[in-house]
Amino acid sequence: MRTDGRQHDEIRPVTITPGFLPAAEGSALIEIGHTKVICTASLEEAVPGWLRGGGRGWVTAEYGMLPRSTSTRTQREVNRGRPGGRTHEIQRLIGRALRSVTRLDKLGERMIHIDCDVLQADGGTRTAAITGGWVALALALKQMVDFRMIAEMPLSEPLAAISVGMVDGAAMLDLCYEEDSRAEVDMNVVMTAGGEFAEVQSTGESRTFTLHQLEQMLELAKNGVAKLIEAQRSI
Amino acid sequence: MRTDGRQHDEIRPVTITPGFLPAAEGSALIEIGHTKVICTASLEEAVPGWLRGGGRGWVTAEYGMLPRSTSTRTQREVNRGRPGGRTHEIQRLIGRALRSVTRLDKLGERMIHIDCDVLQADGGTRTAAITGGWVALALALKQMVDFRMIAEMPLSEPLAAISVGMVDGAAMLDLCYEEDSRAEVDMNVVMTAGGEFAEVQSTGESRTFTLHQLEQMLELAKNGVAKLIEAQRSI
Amino acid sequence: MRTDGRQHDEIRPVTITPGFLPAAEGSALIEIGHTKVICTASLEEAVPGWLRGGGRGWVTAEYGMLPRSTSTRTQREVNRGRPGGRTHEIQRLIGRALRSVTRLDKLGERMIHIDCDVLQADGGTRTAAITGGWVALALALKQMVDFRMIAEMPLSEPLAAISVGMVDGAAMLDLCYEEDSRAEVDMNVVMTAGGEFAEVQSTGESRTFTLHQLEQMLELAKNGVAKLIEAQRSI
Amino acid sequence: MRTDGRQHDEIRPVTITPGFLPAAEGSALIEIGHTKVICTASLEEAVPGWLRGGGRGWVTAEYGMLPRSTSTRTQREVNRGRPGGRTHEIQRLIGRALRSVTRLDKLGERMIHIDCDVLQADGGTRTAAITGGWVALALALKQMVDFRMIAEMPLSEPLAAISVGMVDGAAMLDLCYEEDSRAEVDMNVVMTAGGEFAEVQSTGESRTFTLHQLEQMLELAKNGVAKLIEAQRSI
Amino acid sequence: MRTDGRQHDEIRPVTITPGFLPAAEGSALIEIGHTKVICTASLEEAVPGWLRGGGRGWVTAEYGMLPRSTSTRTQREVNRGRPGGRTHEIQRLIGRALRSVTRLDKLGERMIHIDCDVLQADGGTRTAAITGGWVALALALKQMVDFRMIAEMPLSEPLAAISVGMVDGAAMLDLCYEEDSRAEVDMNVVMTAGGEFAEVQSTGESRTFTLHQLEQMLELAKNGVAKLIEAQRSI
Amino acid sequence: MRTDGRQHDEIRPVTITPGFLPAAEGSALIEIGHTKVICTASLEEAVPGWLRGGGRGWVTAEYGMLPRSTSTRTQREVNRGRPGGRTHEIQRLIGRALRSVTRLDKLGERMIHIDCDVLQADGGTRTAAITGGWVALALALKQMVDFRMIAEMPLSEPLAAISVGMVDGAAMLDLCYEEDSRAEVDMNVVMTAGGEFAEVQSTGESRTFTLHQLEQMLELAKNGVAKLIEAQRSI
Repeated sequence: MRTDGRQHDEIRPVTITPGFLPAAEGSALIEIGHTKVICTASLEEAVPGWLRGGGRGWVTAEYGMLPRSTSTRTQREVNRGRPGGRTHEIQRLIGRALRSVTRLDKLGERMIHIDCDVLQADGGTRTAAITGGWVALALALKQMVDFRMIAEMPLSEPLAAISVGMVDGAAMLDLCYEEDSRAEVDMNVVMTAGGEFAEVQSTGESRTFTLHQLEQMLELAKNGVAKLIEAQRSI
Repeated sequence: MRTDGRQHDEIRPVTITPGFLPAAEGSALIEIGHTKVICTASLEEAVPGWLRGGGRGWVTAEYGMLPRSTSTRTQREVNRGRPGGRTHEIQRLIGRALRSVTRLDKLGERMIHIDCDVLQADGGTRTAAITGGWVALALALKQMVDFRMIAEMPLSEPLAAISVGMVDGAAMLDLCYEEDSRAEVDMNVVMTAGGEFAEVQSTGESRTFTLHQLEQMLELAKNGVAKLIEAQRSI
Repeated sequence: MRTDGRQHDEIRPVTITPGFLPAAEGSALIEIGHTKVICTASLEEAVPGWLRGGGRGWVTAEYGMLPRSTSTRTQREVNRGRPGGRTHEIQRLIGRALRSVTRLDKLGERMIHIDCDVLQADGGTRTAAITGGWVALALALKQMVDFRMIAEMPLSEPLAAISVGMVDGAAMLDLCYEEDSRAEVDMNVVMTAGGEFAEVQSTGESRTFTLHQLEQMLELAKNGVAKLIEAQRSI
Repeated sequence: MRTDGRQHDEIRPVTITPGFLPAAEGSALIEIGHTKVICTASLEEAVPGWLRGGGRGWVTAEYGMLPRSTSTRTQREVNRGRPGGRTHEIQRLIGRALRSVTRLDKLGERMIHIDCDVLQADGGTRTAAITGGWVALALALKQMVDFRMIAEMPLSEPLAAISVGMVDGAAMLDLCYEEDSRAEVDMNVVMTAGGEFAEVQSTGESRTFTLHQLEQMLELAKNGVAKLIEAQRSI
Repeated sequence: MRTDGRQHDEIRPVTITPGFLPAAEGSALIEIGHTKVICTASLEEAVPGWLRGGGRGWVTAEYGMLPRSTSTRTQREVNRGRPGGRTHEIQRLIGRALRSVTRLDKLGERMIHIDCDVLQADGGTRTAAITGGWVALALALKQMVDFRMIAEMPLSEPLAAISVGMVDGAAMLDLCYEEDSRAEVDMNVVMTAGGEFAEVQSTGESRTFTLHQLEQMLELAKNGVAKLIEAQRSI
Repeated sequence: MRTDGRQHDEIRPVTITPGFLPAAEGSALIEIGHTKVICTASLEEAVPGWLRGGGRGWVTAEYGMLPRSTSTRTQREVNRGRPGGRTHEIQRLIGRALRSVTRLDKLGERMIHIDCDVLQADGGTRTAAITGGWVALALALKQMVDFRMIAEMPLSEPLAAISVGMVDGAAMLDLCYEEDSRAEVDMNVVMTAGGEFAEVQSTGESRTFTLHQLEQMLELAKNGVAKLIEAQRSI
């Protein structure tokens, strides 16, 4: 049994509130346990310089945390003059994940900015950001179809992400902060509704892990992602 | 009659949700019309270098906007490497305003950080931040009293802030974004429950204004602040 | 009686030296007591991106202090990598103030940069910068008229600024540094020759203030600004 | 057959030159095909603030590229004022990987900086940096044992890293730049001599991938890493 | 004959106003032709970390230009986030030059900051800064002797600097901006009253120069510096 | 006799490896004693804004040091957010020196970037960078002639640089780090094959120097540069 009474293969309660910030082309508030992330999708009628003239679009992501999303206050990155290494790593991951299911050639020369801002952080913020970011992206793309800016939805399929880890020698699904900070192995898995992977990142900070453990964790992740995709579909 | 049907001397509906981010020592979500700001108060057991050894505390504020709090996306300041001039101006205002009603000598050598993060911006974000920031500050100070860290509440009295302006030649209370952007004169007033001022800032961007107009706007502000202090007291 | 023997409603001696830096389109050295500020106006044949194509011009201001303008040396802001919050606040104030009396639509798509650099700081540097900045701006605009770049002076009227404050419970005009640092209330007033306000900023850092005190300070400011506008006119 | 005539499961020729920069406590030049990376290990008798007083050490890594390590010149990151997202991601990966096989509690309160500087980049620079970084780290630790600063080698076992990918639908080992840039899936695997994983990162930028493909790539990586560990051991 | 009617071996009129900014421990306004530089010396009772505990002092310099010291406005370096290469080069030169005649071991663990701020730039600002900086330094050191902080003047002898160059094939002394910008060779010479060199920097930007030309320029410089040291002595 | 057994007028062994980084248009590894610098020349088909439209080209240089090129690790400048003063000074020197022998009008509107990265630093890195940079530049220009991008070599003649200094009262050629750090006078001389100077920089940090010493040092430098130019020619 885990701190919060869950089974090893059980995810925390998930709520997705679509349209949370109505000014955005697409938006969602995603809550997984105590973790809360606002995701918005903003359409820009331009692409980065290196894509100009190719007729293709782009999806990019940014990630931030409110200073008091954490249990003690975290300094704003703007006051250190630059995003930290962790922020860079996370926003690159979100962007790659969402691009893997987006038909960029169907977007036209447009960019969609996914902003993921963490209101409350209790583990799994990056995977929540991907899951909620997909909802914001889908809503924005749907609006573009409705407004006849594009002919069809350029999303190949639903996509979600979940964390898994080895904690006290056991594989566990959807780690909360307390579990995450004592995990021997930490894994983030991004999967599609069809059961394919967009990204697998598995890290042993304090120790290494075996192929068997890797497979155990992937199995847990698969079930976790399936639950999340259900939640996405129900809205 | 105004865009949203209000009278000239009428404020927008106000909701204050105390304890919105429970991890913080004090917090509140303040909503004034469509403007929504999360305010948190975080206690730090240290003061800036120039105050060390004096036995006094400090209250400081920071202000940020989610990229999609605005109707079109605003670039994150962290990616420009520094907070902009407007951000500096606002966070200095919030800090001064809250310090004016705080007995810093009763705090001990402690600092309280007020973080004001705008989820949705429809005019009046800086005044909402002061009104909500006071609630977060009061809750944090109350917790300090409850935990017997300090003997008594070091707040002299409630404090709130409201915007006023001259729009199409008429004085108007609590401007929404659309009114603010075509106002001839823009004023922010920070007042205490006792009817004294902590700050008056009145600016004619496109034209100048008379003493009579100044007095008219102050009168409107007085009534608006009274309504906000009522809302603060009811929680 | 004040430290320097002045009456409560008396400003310090004022000297304005027009054309102090002849390379600039307009310039002035303004001295108010020991405070000395060089103001220059530089013409640029371009406007910021967001104004392009609208046929209107812009006036913007920057403010700096020599490291040894203060009684102990102040670190150069360039070595901290960015202008501080106080600098941002001041240069935004100077820009707004000067724009409030400038007919931007008569400028053409041109920008005038007002640079205010403090050689010696003894209180009131921001108000001196506005008063001297107006002179530099007027001289630059006059040169543009002389060179037939514009048909008529796009300045509606003279404008100057002065500080006032409550010190030891009494309203005082034109605070020097020593008075400013122990003032209970600090106010900056920007007014036109016609007696209208461009900006009123009144701040209680250590305590709040009443409407009566506000009115007293505005009255003092009115007389102070009148003296400064006389000095501007005499040159 | 691949561009350079290799089999799908064949790595490029590897050369490791230990002691390449003799001033460093440990160093190695690693060459894998045309990719060349200088790795150094520098000992510092101090740990980051958050580790102080705990008696444990730390291993951290930094990564850089010479401007002309790439086929067209890349701007120096110092001139953009900050390391980019990719640099952050890579140096965090190298640090984590090397810490996973280091007994930090046996180091004492010391930090070892691993610097990986790419002279020539032809794909696989981050994995080469890990493989070469391990050699530099081992040499520095050996010197510490020789100098009796520590009692025994705090490295649990050899560690190396290799890239794999899906290119034109086929799994391939040790991608060169040309292959990497058209790979559908890109994977970096960090493994120990004992066959355990320190990190698995698998990314589908343009498309997703199946569990079967993941397993195929892991199999290739296992053989590749074994070859690299042989090269490490032979020196 | 030169643009301004001078002989090839003639310096521009020099005026040095000591005590120009009375708040500083030492200060001078130096004017050489149209070039005007304010130099101040500020005493700090501390030395940089790497000198601490050695009983020696330090002299360091910073250099800045007012935005409108130049004939067209120059952007403030603070707004580019860092001092440019030219600024670094100049302030390092000024510091080295002044340290070469200062007995740092007689200063105690104190630092003197020399700030050189250019009001008007017409060539030779760096050499004027050295000549005026020496005056500011000498005045500050004299005050320290007067206040019995140090037993004797720690300056070995007067020091001044001048520019020379090859213009249209002829050696010329004390170049104004117009001459400097078309000079084939540009040289800055820092010399003591005793005729020794503290620094010689001779640069051929558009062409190279012979030993004979070098000697010719050094001869001119020697006479120019002698004139400047006379001006220093007369105050 | 010197630390390493050399005569006062003897340079350290020199090796120049042309084409060290074959991806670059021109490259060389230069080794002078223990000092090792990689120099590359990169062609860009564009010039800086202020040169555009004039038909002329430009040569610019950048300089960096690997963190462990020094005997104790040096922090990367990118992590301080900007190149330091020394870096600026050196890269400006390299650029000026190479431009002095380049016919910029024969280049067309193209820029050549010279990158000098120090692998190992034992004194004389900036002069080695100039000597090796000239080789990289010459190779790149030769390639441009071979590719018929330009009609003839736009280099007027070979150019090299060497350090000299006064150490323990004696003039010495080609200082190693240990000599450099205790030199009373430090000089860098950039000369052409024809015996003319491109740059002479002579600095007395701890004391001043006489004309006689200057001449002695120039004489040593002349012979040292001749040896380096021989080495350049032999490749």
